[in-house]
Amino acid sequence: MFESAEIGTKVSKARFEREAAALRTQLLDAQYALLREARHGVVVLVNGVHGAGKSETVNVFNEWMDPRHIRTEGFGRLEAHELAARQPEMQRFWQVLPGQGRMSILFGSWYSDPIAAFATGRESHERFLHRLERIRHLERMLHADGVRLLKLWFHLSREEAQGRAKLLSADPRTAWRVTPEARADLKLYKPFAQASEEALRKTSTAEAPWHVIEGTDPAYRTLAAARLLLEVLTRAGTPAPATVAATPATPAAARPADATARVLPPTVAVPDLLASLDYTQTLGKKAYKHQLEEWQGRLNLLSRKLAEQGRPLVVVFEGMDAAGKGSTIRRITQALDARFYRVVPVAAPNENERAQPYLWRFWRFMPHPGKAVFFDRSWYGRVLVERVEGFCAEADWQRAYAEINELEDQLAEAGVVVVKFWLAITADEQLRRFEARRQTPHKLHKITEEDWRNRDKWPLYERAANDMIDRTSTRVAPWQVVASDDKHFARIEVLRRLCNQVEDALGSGARSAPKA
Amino acid sequence: MFESAEIGTKVSKARFEREAAALRTQLLDAQYALLREARHGVVVLVNGVHGAGKSETVNVFNEWMDPRHIRTEGFGRLEAHELAARQPEMQRFWQVLPGQGRMSILFGSWYSDPIAAFATGRESHERFLHRLERIRHLERMLHADGVRLLKLWFHLSREEAQGRAKLLSADPRTAWRVTPEARADLKLYKPFAQASEEALRKTSTAEAPWHVIEGTDPAYRTLAAARLLLEVLTRAGTPAPATVAATPATPAAARPADATARVLPPTVAVPDLLASLDYTQTLGKKAYKHQLEEWQGRLNLLSRKLAEQGRPLVVVFEGMDAAGKGSTIRRITQALDARFYRVVPVAAPNENERAQPYLWRFWRFMPHPGKAVFFDRSWYGRVLVERVEGFCAEADWQRAYAEINELEDQLAEAGVVVVKFWLAITADEQLRRFEARRQTPHKLHKITEEDWRNRDKWPLYERAANDMIDRTSTRVAPWQVVASDDKHFARIEVLRRLCNQVEDALGSGARSAPKA
Repeated sequence: MFESAEIGTKVSKARFEREAAALRTQLLDAQYALLREARHGVVVLVNGVHGAGKSETVNVFNEWMDPRHIRTEGFGRLEAHELAARQPEMQRFWQVLPGQGRMSILFGSWYSDPIAAFATGRESHERFLHRLERIRHLERMLHADGVRLLKLWFHLSREEAQGRAKLLSADPRTAWRVTPEARADLKLYKPFAQASEEALRKTSTAEAPWHVIEGTDPAYRTLAAARLLLEVLTRAGTPAPATVAATPATPAAARPADATARVLPPTVAVPDLLASLDYTQTLGKKAYKHQLEEWQGRLNLLSRKLAEQGRPLVVVFEGMDAAGKGSTIRRITQALDARFYRVVPVAAPNENERAQPYLWRFWRFMPHPGKAVFFDRSWYGRVLVERVEGFCAEADWQRAYAEINELEDQLAEAGVVVVKFWLAITADEQLRRFEARRQTPHKLHKITEEDWRNRDKWPLYERAANDMIDRTSTRVAPWQVVASDDKHFARIEVLRRLCNQVEDALGSGARSAPKA
Repeated sequence: MFESAEIGTKVSKARFEREAAALRTQLLDAQYALLREARHGVVVLVNGVHGAGKSETVNVFNEWMDPRHIRTEGFGRLEAHELAARQPEMQRFWQVLPGQGRMSILFGSWYSDPIAAFATGRESHERFLHRLERIRHLERMLHADGVRLLKLWFHLSREEAQGRAKLLSADPRTAWRVTPEARADLKLYKPFAQASEEALRKTSTAEAPWHVIEGTDPAYRTLAAARLLLEVLTRAGTPAPATVAATPATPAAARPADATARVLPPTVAVPDLLASLDYTQTLGKKAYKHQLEEWQGRLNLLSRKLAEQGRPLVVVFEGMDAAGKGSTIRRITQALDARFYRVVPVAAPNENERAQPYLWRFWRFMPHPGKAVFFDRSWYGRVLVERVEGFCAEADWQRAYAEINELEDQLAEAGVVVVKFWLAITADEQLRRFEARRQTPHKLHKITEEDWRNRDKWPLYERAANDMIDRTSTRVAPWQVVASDDKHFARIEVLRRLCNQVEDALGSGARSAPKA
């Protein structure tokens, strides 16, 4: 893969100056066009051998274009404290993705740590392959969400790389350019080259190919990199995919008329889990009060254990309108120290959020070690409201099942306890609650025309929920489906299952039974 | 201060239910009005004695109002790792301020740590007073920026507080409600009460008074807190101050005609520092190249020391248009590992940023330990472009000097190295650079009509810059004013002064002289 980048291509000074002048004008124009159209974000990955011109190229891009619309971020291998913090693999990259019309240059990238970890022997080949698979998944999703990727690899042969480092080190004025990290890596040139080559081969896909650039001649490499960037910026625009949820407040008239048609039958019949639940289970007021105190106490102690062990907790609540998500969350948070948790109510995405890949807005809220986040609605909106209302294309919600499983798998791998509740109510119970809201002044705001319209699509929502539970109930993050027609019963059931899942995750193993 | 909150006020159940029903409807209406008008943010501070009903009240607010527009965040005393990280005092609170129209409930607040630190003997009385002064400053600024503050203190007498804890602890089902922290604090009831009383007395200001609520009776305290909140939400609207910069792209016609009139003479004559600089200093190309390598090397080594010691670095660049801010920053970042720094170009505030207090958008970018941030323009826009163009009221830019000094003082106290450059050019040199930009295709985007219009106001900008340097050059963050008509001279000068200031801050003491 690297052979063709060791042939010593050179560019004369005159040719460089002529071509550079033209290129920088074209790049600027292309950058402003990107910004004006605001349909695609562009991510440039800058990787390669030490001394091959990575940082010089990043500086050229920032000098030639308008740096106010470029975000440049450096990423290296994970440092000791980052490894200890066990942040989910891709979280730090999600935080620097560009909005539509903007560019992010990642100097070092999601490739840096996997390659270094394998080349230096910190991680096994199996783990290396697993991380490359994660990367392919991420890049495929970004591509599908309309992000354009440019992956640049700057190469130097072993002789060239080591020779350059030697020259720089010999002059006290330039010795600082060879960092201790570079010095150590260059001694491991061969394992690094092998790991890099394997990474490049396995991640050079149609939607995100690698470009290897010979780093020897600054003029050549600069022109080569700039031309590739120009090509990505000006690529004939495929229409940006409809990756973004419209606001639920969209008037019904403005919505696609064929919303129903979008809910296609799955290829395999999905069991109607929701219909099979026993909705008649109830719990009397006295028993409820008694058990509430019991389970809240248990949860409080578990939350202290999570904090001690630095384990994060993510709890997702989904369910039909009026299923009791908010009131159940309050019964949970009553038991918790306010510093331990955050409640994130998820509504239609705002302007910033609409300019980003779909999952971006959820990654921002993932908890720090030892903290909890409760999502009142979540990323599952993609396969529920967005599917049913036609706010995204079928291809988008279809691929979302795998994307969501991958998200939760990453969280779990990083030690996050993931608990997901579907609060299931019957259509009759929903009607009773809607009517009650209509008759209570301080509950009036909870019931809108939108809710009644959604209710008309009950069978479609139910189908979407059944599909969702079927396709995203995984070993690491199973769905907890709770019959919720009786609020008391549901709240205790949620507390009980939450405690049990947290206890299991903490490794106690012993499932606790209510003493009541 | 607490005596009137120990008289055992009670409310009957019937009265509670009647008043609560009315209040929650009014609160909801007021919340939606706040949201609709989107002129004020509301911050509710919930503090007080353990067991006095703080968390119950937070839950009531979230249940009675629409929680999608309320952000609830818990803050306690700083934990060991937070103390070790030495984050600037107010940074974590800036991150949770509400935008206009929204509410943040701070459960525990900027009072929690100062009171606990003094009451438990971790910090001296002098330090306590210093932190209360910080708080007064913050609250005054938030008030001036249009944020409404509600400060609630929930009180219980010593007997009541300790008695309740004893009762709860005696029942195994409720013992979890008394946390180890609460148990320890209640043993120190008296020092906590004394520290709290002093804090409340010294921070009960006209713009942000304290309200002490007796916590004994749940019905009473809930109604009392809800009424106070309603009062804050519905307070007759003073017009929101013009705290926010309009976009510089505002057409000239739309701007106040009396921009000149706003630039009032200061009460004390400010020395014309900028006129007194020697703008004729130059540096030849060969010497420049030699010294550049020298100083970049030195800076690189210093950056590694900063990283090792976990010291953050903030560098601010200000100067007239075309003063060379961007190109100077690139000469600095050339010397640095991309993972060490971030460049933040500051433009007109976006929609989110305009909905927040002025300094909010800068706090977001303050560096982590051992990292650097370079601001290309900064918070000084308040006393430069916003003053000259009349984008904010005179009272707003006048108070900004003190606000900025306070900001930088907080940074310095937390160990951040703060370096500020004013790149000074003459009007003639600016003209030469503008003309050159006009004649170079790839520089054309750098020169707009706006730049020419600003140039017409040169004397006003110069006056504003002189005032700024005079009033914000402090011991902890002095201005570095660099004559920049000669780019080579200026870049070396900037590198030299940056290195020296960082070296001083690292405690080496020995100022380095260029070896050239």
